[in-house]
Amino acid sequence: MTSTIVVPDHVSFVDDAEALQRAVQGWGTNEKGIISILGHRTAAQRQHIRLAYHELYQEDLVKRLESELSGDFEKAVYRWILDPADRDAVLANVAIKKLVNPDYHVVLEIACIRSPEELLAVRRAYQARYKRSLEEDVAAHTTGDIRKLLVALVTAFRYTGEEINARLAKSEAGILHDAIKDKELNHEEVIRIVSTRSKAQVMATFNCYRDDQGTSITKKLLGEGDDHGTEFSKALRTAIRCLNDSKKYFEKVLRNAVKRVGTDEDALTRVIVTRAEKDLKDIKEYYYKRNSVPLEQAVAKDTSGDYKAFLLTLLGKED
Amino acid sequence: MTSTIVVPDHVSFVDDAEALQRAVQGWGTNEKGIISILGHRTAAQRQHIRLAYHELYQEDLVKRLESELSGDFEKAVYRWILDPADRDAVLANVAIKKLVNPDYHVVLEIACIRSPEELLAVRRAYQARYKRSLEEDVAAHTTGDIRKLLVALVTAFRYTGEEINARLAKSEAGILHDAIKDKELNHEEVIRIVSTRSKAQVMATFNCYRDDQGTSITKKLLGEGDDHGTEFSKALRTAIRCLNDSKKYFEKVLRNAVKRVGTDEDALTRVIVTRAEKDLKDIKEYYYKRNSVPLEQAVAKDTSGDYKAFLLTLLGKED
Repeated sequence: MTSTIVVPDHVSFVDDAEALQRAVQGWGTNEKGIISILGHRTAAQRQHIRLAYHELYQEDLVKRLESELSGDFEKAVYRWILDPADRDAVLANVAIKKLVNPDYHVVLEIACIRSPEELLAVRRAYQARYKRSLEEDVAAHTTGDIRKLLVALVTAFRYTGEEINARLAKSEAGILHDAIKDKELNHEEVIRIVSTRSKAQVMATFNCYRDDQGTSITKKLLGEGDDHGTEFSKALRTAIRCLNDSKKYFEKVLRNAVKRVGTDEDALTRVIVTRAEKDLKDIKEYYYKRNSVPLEQAVAKDTSGDYKAFLLTLLGKED
Repeated sequence: MTSTIVVPDHVSFVDDAEALQRAVQGWGTNEKGIISILGHRTAAQRQHIRLAYHELYQEDLVKRLESELSGDFEKAVYRWILDPADRDAVLANVAIKKLVNPDYHVVLEIACIRSPEELLAVRRAYQARYKRSLEEDVAAHTTGDIRKLLVALVTAFRYTGEEINARLAKSEAGILHDAIKDKELNHEEVIRIVSTRSKAQVMATFNCYRDDQGTSITKKLLGEGDDHGTEFSKALRTAIRCLNDSKKYFEKVLRNAVKRVGTDEDALTRVIVTRAEKDLKDIKEYYYKRNSVPLEQAVAKDTSGDYKAFLLTLLGKED
């Protein structure tokens, strides 16, 4: 665990609920007060605070915050306060619904980076929230090869053992190589390998590929703006990057989010909120190594106000 | 619950373990003793007995029984004594491995008849036992359209709510009709509908199909020994029958198992062992209605010895 958030030794859920109530009541909201509490509590603590708040005030804290806050700050607080599986369900649903102008990143991240048990929890949360299954919605909003890939990935329940079958890795690296060579990325064998093998096994396969071909599979796929639709090859490449090295993947998402003329707040919020309690410290290191600028500095430069203060708190800034 | 087994009011796991030990020790095995205990215990009780036996004798009861018993009786006792999810994992694995001479029934039954949570438990048990995921093995042992269908079904985690979207049922019944008409059963939309929708929804769709076409989808599929491979259309039909009316489906499996010249002991054992504590009483009723012969009588006629005694016990015969 390389969490970035700073959590006090002693936390009283009732005190927190009361302080949050003071922060949202009356005219004007005390955003700083909200940040100083929620920005320093773990996922489990935030759920306890939400329960305590409900018991004290017969009101859902999440709904109240939604009505008091606005803009990117509201979105970030909303995503932060939700239970992680429920948050992923919301992120996936929002992403699926805008698949007209396709952005498969979010679904791919959830499917390929969360652990098998976490992904399962997301599928449960999705059903509880939307009364449909995640795969049902993904399938209904996509078609063709992209559908095959996405549905296979979101329904996977991979084996988590560390055992590797080296011979299998070698033979499946060959299958991947042939598919890329023949420009048959959409081949069912490619989807089978990427979506059903354990992470350890699929990483061994990618390593074999690199050893045999002298270049990584993701580099090779970059060269393939090809007959079978760049969209599929892009999605496949994202899936492989997520499986292979999620920290490196997130570093790049952050880099792209801040380097654009208009900052991509959705991506920025998503990565910081979903990784703060997981591996954001490592991602910060990757970011600094790659960009020679601390992530906090890049974020501070591109954001403002309460939104900025909140993200910096999640990044580990002491108040 | 319409279980057929007869369970005494008071059960002592230690007494049972001791009695089983007496039944297996020394020369010759007391098969009647084994049946009189295990044939009258629920799945949870059998697990307790297995634990008690291990504590008393530092030996796995399952392994000991395997070494003492033989033939169809051994197979039936072995399947019966396992935890249901673990048993399904074994059944699936045996079926997958013989996919050279394909028999997809077992995998389809598990995928389409077990509840979503039960199917999930099977996937966990499969990993614990075989160090690979169920979908990984299914995918590795199949190809083409059959693979697409089977993998989609075993990875499903369907929504279990009773809500039905009538408009959706109507439109998806139309999609199924078009696919059958155009002889495109392997169409991705067919697989999507059958594998991702909730059972309530998919049944509503089949009902719409029947209302619109004047005949059931399974009857329609029977007519399709077609260009796209009878194997796929058979598997699809089995999946639909399992989703639609599993008791009727099992009645027919039993009917086929006993009506053949050589009895199909594997099927007979499988249905009786897996349904005894679920809905075997109902299946017996279906059987009697359809064949005018009680299932017990048909089983007694086609089997013999300890195997016969054991199946009849599971069917509810009092000792």
